[in-house]
Amino acid sequence: MEIAFEKSGGLVPAIIQDSRTDKVLMLGFMNAEALAETQRTRQAVFFSRSRNRLWRKGESSGHVLRVLEIRIDCDADALLLRVEPLGPGVCHQGYSSCFFRRIDGSGSVRTIEERTFDPAKVYAPGAE
Amino acid sequence: MEIAFEKSGGLVPAIIQDSRTDKVLMLGFMNAEALAETQRTRQAVFFSRSRNRLWRKGESSGHVLRVLEIRIDCDADALLLRVEPLGPGVCHQGYSSCFFRRIDGSGSVRTIEERTFDPAKVYAPGAE
Repeated sequence: MEIAFEKSGGLVPAIIQDSRTDKVLMLGFMNAEALAETQRTRQAVFFSRSRNRLWRKGESSGHVLRVLEIRIDCDADALLLRVEPLGPGVCHQGYSSCFFRRIDGSGSVRTIEERTFDPAKVYAPGAE
Repeated sequence: MEIAFEKSGGLVPAIIQDSRTDKVLMLGFMNAEALAETQRTRQAVFFSRSRNRLWRKGESSGHVLRVLEIRIDCDADALLLRVEPLGPGVCHQGYSSCFFRRIDGSGSVRTIEERTFDPAKVYAPGAE
């Protein structure tokens, strides 16, 4: 399977969806190495653009993502991972999903979910 | 709301999720203009990297995406659009979702969904 990593500088977006609830939890990027690590370990591994290195989701929080299924889109330039999230949430701000805010018609942003954990108790300062 | 368009050369990934079924249908990219057009018309408008122009989903097929909700992630660099898809599917290959293939453990790819329409009857050659 040829995946079109070269389209976006070696990275493809990977959508993370909870396999039990179908909730979209987050979006990360993977290079070929991150995808290979994800396939090998069955835990989601991303490439962090800000830290310029591989990053196993949950490496600091313990909230790893067990990967049940990897799908690829028609153009082979985006991935969809169906996962079982371990822990109360994937977002470093304390929510089950990183998509906890809505943009309304006027362009303002509103938080529409409740926190599921206290990030100060899970993350060291600056982590994840 | 400041969206981090500059992180990926002016484009942010936009996940498209069916609001009725929670199925992930596709992933597109938006620049600021595409997002503004999406907000104005309440139909999904992307920036096509291959054609280097704005692209209203459904402009050739009629399968437009009615946008019910736009969410933004914690880092403001990815969007999640909850939509009502008009028509039998979003994929130019004839499937309800572009993610109709699974990558298995050995890296081979298998189609795991049924076609919902005949793309030859919907798309002109080379369209969408």
